[in-house]
Amino acid sequence: MSLPGEFASDNAAPVHPVVMDAIAAANTGASPAYGADPWTHRAEQWFADTFGAESSTTLVWNGTGANVVALRALLKPWEAVLCTAQAHINVDECGAPERIAGCKLVDLPTPGGKLTPAQVEAALVGIGDQHRVQPRVVSLTQATEYGTVYTRDELRDISDIAHRHGLLVHMDGARIANAAAALGTSLRECTVDVGIDVLSFGATKNGAMGAEAVVVFDPALAASLPFLRKQTAQLASKMRYLAAQFIGLAHDDTWLVNARQANAMAHRLAEAIREIDGVTITQSVDANAVFALLPRAATEALQRDFHFYVWDEVTGEVRLMCNWATEPADVDQFVAAIRAELSR
Amino acid sequence: MSLPGEFASDNAAPVHPVVMDAIAAANTGASPAYGADPWTHRAEQWFADTFGAESSTTLVWNGTGANVVALRALLKPWEAVLCTAQAHINVDECGAPERIAGCKLVDLPTPGGKLTPAQVEAALVGIGDQHRVQPRVVSLTQATEYGTVYTRDELRDISDIAHRHGLLVHMDGARIANAAAALGTSLRECTVDVGIDVLSFGATKNGAMGAEAVVVFDPALAASLPFLRKQTAQLASKMRYLAAQFIGLAHDDTWLVNARQANAMAHRLAEAIREIDGVTITQSVDANAVFALLPRAATEALQRDFHFYVWDEVTGEVRLMCNWATEPADVDQFVAAIRAELSR
Amino acid sequence: MSLPGEFASDNAAPVHPVVMDAIAAANTGASPAYGADPWTHRAEQWFADTFGAESSTTLVWNGTGANVVALRALLKPWEAVLCTAQAHINVDECGAPERIAGCKLVDLPTPGGKLTPAQVEAALVGIGDQHRVQPRVVSLTQATEYGTVYTRDELRDISDIAHRHGLLVHMDGARIANAAAALGTSLRECTVDVGIDVLSFGATKNGAMGAEAVVVFDPALAASLPFLRKQTAQLASKMRYLAAQFIGLAHDDTWLVNARQANAMAHRLAEAIREIDGVTITQSVDANAVFALLPRAATEALQRDFHFYVWDEVTGEVRLMCNWATEPADVDQFVAAIRAELSR
Amino acid sequence: MSLPGEFASDNAAPVHPVVMDAIAAANTGASPAYGADPWTHRAEQWFADTFGAESSTTLVWNGTGANVVALRALLKPWEAVLCTAQAHINVDECGAPERIAGCKLVDLPTPGGKLTPAQVEAALVGIGDQHRVQPRVVSLTQATEYGTVYTRDELRDISDIAHRHGLLVHMDGARIANAAAALGTSLRECTVDVGIDVLSFGATKNGAMGAEAVVVFDPALAASLPFLRKQTAQLASKMRYLAAQFIGLAHDDTWLVNARQANAMAHRLAEAIREIDGVTITQSVDANAVFALLPRAATEALQRDFHFYVWDEVTGEVRLMCNWATEPADVDQFVAAIRAELSR
Repeated sequence: MSLPGEFASDNAAPVHPVVMDAIAAANTGASPAYGADPWTHRAEQWFADTFGAESSTTLVWNGTGANVVALRALLKPWEAVLCTAQAHINVDECGAPERIAGCKLVDLPTPGGKLTPAQVEAALVGIGDQHRVQPRVVSLTQATEYGTVYTRDELRDISDIAHRHGLLVHMDGARIANAAAALGTSLRECTVDVGIDVLSFGATKNGAMGAEAVVVFDPALAASLPFLRKQTAQLASKMRYLAAQFIGLAHDDTWLVNARQANAMAHRLAEAIREIDGVTITQSVDANAVFALLPRAATEALQRDFHFYVWDEVTGEVRLMCNWATEPADVDQFVAAIRAELSR
Repeated sequence: MSLPGEFASDNAAPVHPVVMDAIAAANTGASPAYGADPWTHRAEQWFADTFGAESSTTLVWNGTGANVVALRALLKPWEAVLCTAQAHINVDECGAPERIAGCKLVDLPTPGGKLTPAQVEAALVGIGDQHRVQPRVVSLTQATEYGTVYTRDELRDISDIAHRHGLLVHMDGARIANAAAALGTSLRECTVDVGIDVLSFGATKNGAMGAEAVVVFDPALAASLPFLRKQTAQLASKMRYLAAQFIGLAHDDTWLVNARQANAMAHRLAEAIREIDGVTITQSVDANAVFALLPRAATEALQRDFHFYVWDEVTGEVRLMCNWATEPADVDQFVAAIRAELSR
Repeated sequence: MSLPGEFASDNAAPVHPVVMDAIAAANTGASPAYGADPWTHRAEQWFADTFGAESSTTLVWNGTGANVVALRALLKPWEAVLCTAQAHINVDECGAPERIAGCKLVDLPTPGGKLTPAQVEAALVGIGDQHRVQPRVVSLTQATEYGTVYTRDELRDISDIAHRHGLLVHMDGARIANAAAALGTSLRECTVDVGIDVLSFGATKNGAMGAEAVVVFDPALAASLPFLRKQTAQLASKMRYLAAQFIGLAHDDTWLVNARQANAMAHRLAEAIREIDGVTITQSVDANAVFALLPRAATEALQRDFHFYVWDEVTGEVRLMCNWATEPADVDQFVAAIRAELSR
Repeated sequence: MSLPGEFASDNAAPVHPVVMDAIAAANTGASPAYGADPWTHRAEQWFADTFGAESSTTLVWNGTGANVVALRALLKPWEAVLCTAQAHINVDECGAPERIAGCKLVDLPTPGGKLTPAQVEAALVGIGDQHRVQPRVVSLTQATEYGTVYTRDELRDISDIAHRHGLLVHMDGARIANAAAALGTSLRECTVDVGIDVLSFGATKNGAMGAEAVVVFDPALAASLPFLRKQTAQLASKMRYLAAQFIGLAHDDTWLVNARQANAMAHRLAEAIREIDGVTITQSVDANAVFALLPRAATEALQRDFHFYVWDEVTGEVRLMCNWATEPADVDQFVAAIRAELSR
């Protein structure tokens, strides 16, 4: 469904037809605002079925909103977040966490986008020292900004370390569907079951129009969420249209179908270009992104016909992103172009 | 189109079919994220045509987001906003302006929801005194939270006073369409032409799904808007679906048709119940809201079949809100019920 | 000791000699920074003796710092403070509470500077409503900004109402010494014993150089204070010199002697000018301030020789402030001048 | 004057007698509050004489306050600060810059505590990208947290790069006196003359009681300072006592005498222990700090009699700090103890 050439962002994809249908189906007459409507109830029910009865879900507009609301629910003013240097919260939210949550992010260098338990432990310095912010949250992105996916064991190891030291674990799940599809687990098995305390659940990149959710797994956190959502300007008045997007993605596991398609296309792309002389795949292709080194001249030539980003201006590493609407023909056309360009 | 009985909120209305069509029409293949798409361009063009080439428009998710982004664009950290005690920013945004803009709201009592030039002038105290926040913005809601509408002369008088003292004027136009329809002016004539410096342009209550805009009329302010929008978690990745909503409302002046319908229904309601013994209309019915005193027992009985809010718990004043989807039959049915209840 | 003519502010007074001696006595060799010194220990001990073993005291630089740190210890991000419209936190801290605590102040009009239980109760609206900030703290100033003093019964009534509704009570005690002296109670009897939960303890106006303290009466609050103090830029590295100021004021109850002197001088002044034709005392003279209406011409003439503020530009009400260093001769000279001016 | 054994912090030093005398001399009768007093005028005059007539100085309580006020004067909400990973603002202010200025700190690894022009240039990424905070300030600490001192050329090179890209340069001069003494320049020659835009001027570590200043060199910045100081809770009511501290330090260049003494003692210490087997000096000893590796057992044994900090728990690196009151005998006694300990 995507036009040939779109490998820039999973946000470039359109809305999945099933989601669009669900939105249209919600457009029937008056309905109470701010979430007191049957669609929101159904969406919340799906989240409860998916993540367990103890979980509590708050619908928001976008990923930055989800992350900021989630972090605000976990932090006292002098507490800090440990995250990777590449984390979306650290580099792609224009300082929203610092500004709105008022918190410090302690960013740790992680070549492949994944934190390790040892890094978390090493960052636990100055505990109890009034001059220092106190680490309170470990924030993981799943799938990571580099398209890699934490295994369940890796997640469990980090959450164990975190919990042992009194920290909580936040997961930025902007691409949680891609991660679950990659791991072959349920959404629950790769989140709350491995110790995640709060999840930013991403739907937009997965085929929604503009909807994300904050899922908390500790009932004690739930009470603050409505106020934090409203104060963070994330409360939709006509909530049913956010809810409908989740209803659409839940229908016949559309979320999973979409995630599998995006992942499969990334693998198809990686496998094909891995063979090409002059191309180096730089990150493990676990989900729907391929990171690769191309000659700069090739990159520039290809960007005339294909959308994709240079991710690292220094090395020339590019990011090639597949989405739910990417078709094999899109990939094959891109591969052919890359091959042609590199054989010049 | 609304179910009988919905007078609680214009947010209870569904999305107008023309808007829904525009959204569906935007759902075609891949398109650049974050506003670099043709629909956003068309929406921005409509705003430029509407408000003048000097204006600059930034699309956001919701009203709180629009107001907070707008105020942030105008304020230094120690500067304050003058507003009414009833202002949405003051009572219905859960402290978002204080928290995110970090600013102080100086709220002034205004029985009918309208500030006066004299109030603004009287609030200009402590100028230059380092102990005091410095008034910098006058924020007006149009139509007001009490359904009243500032006349163009009233707006001009306030903006003149404000500008004379170096202040800027923000308009919370969550119901700007209803106000323009009520005044019989273009959108421009009742905003920038009477001295408004920045406008929160409301679309959601006017038939959109969830979309608002910040319109600034001073090009010098425009550069900060993208960063403020992103940092306030108001940047939509799939922007085309926000833009499409404005395209829909612009089509054949749907915004105006919708506003007129809502206003007309409020007048129909007010005219009918004004006659009923025991009902007192408490505010000038200028736009799409009717405020009235009913006996409490009647209110409680009516709330079993009709949605509407008690606005003032102390006096029992109720708010009866019409929207674009309210039909004469809805009003007549409500009027009949009120009449029946009060004749018991 | 004050120069003739100083009735502008108790901050105009010098440092009391006993305090200066205590500071000098602390200036002996090296000593650990940040409060791990014997002087800080002694000061903390005096606070524990004064307010009870359950109390915990944190020394800070100034009143704004004390108030902001205190409020931050009590509030979640969406919670609000009820205070008077005249409260120092509301009008004289340049928006520091909104900016640093990120909280909303809900200001209530109180002609004499005192909140009433009925006002507190009436302000408890929108509880549980996600659109509204949630009242969490009642902040009282004692003595008030109008020189009035809450009785113990008044304080108890307000704290009872507050606690019954789950709110906490903060006291801005910038002039707590003057209040205790006026009430004839111990510091404890007019604070924790009547339900105050956290106290901004003022020393600067009472004869110190620049030192205040935050006293919390619930041990559960104590853990956050060191971090909040540091993050609010209120942690003194050479803490011993702050501590010494409290040691000085504690010595031979210098704090009480100073407060009584300031109060006595205000009474002397009030009694004398009350008789003068053309002077109207406007507030109950309970502590060390006299508020009065004078003819504007007289005010202007007197301000050539005497420092004092016009408090209300509209009515011409003036504030005449006595301090620990004000002498009977100072008062008598001022009275004579007022009398002379009004007899022209 | 310091007790034997104090090498933990220059904040452990007492107040220099000349400063104490200046404070006592200011304690004469009433005087206007908040800086409208002759002592503040004299202090401001000294700053103008020192840094040039274009400069403007604002007195504050402490270093965190100075840094936060300074950064607030330079930053828009979405702008960021480039600093070293070791910077005081980054690790020792408990998140005050993030919380109060609301800004993001971009911390860069700098083994010796000094930024380089190349690092600054490499950090200028994402310029104009709405998703990214925009670098606006380079913050340098002088002398650095590692006791090193930027040369004038180094400072000029960084400020040139910064200015060329539209950034401003902040200097955290908590130990600016030590740096100037080390460089053999005037205060002006190593600040404004090499392109510093705003200086946090440190006095406390140099012999004051608790006083710092924000010096801005661009008159356009001066207007915001009073409001930012007040809102950051850094406005002293009895300002004369802060001013007096600067008057004391200015008297007979006491600031320089003190700085030279501290620096000389650090050099004496470094020269002596450099010879000892088992001791490795790890940083260039440019000012009043010595960083060294000692065997852990020796460190623990020495800490029984001497105060000093382990700076890096991983490597065991210790910080040995001299101050204005450190005497040769103090150093020699410490050296003897180290030698004795390492010869066991």
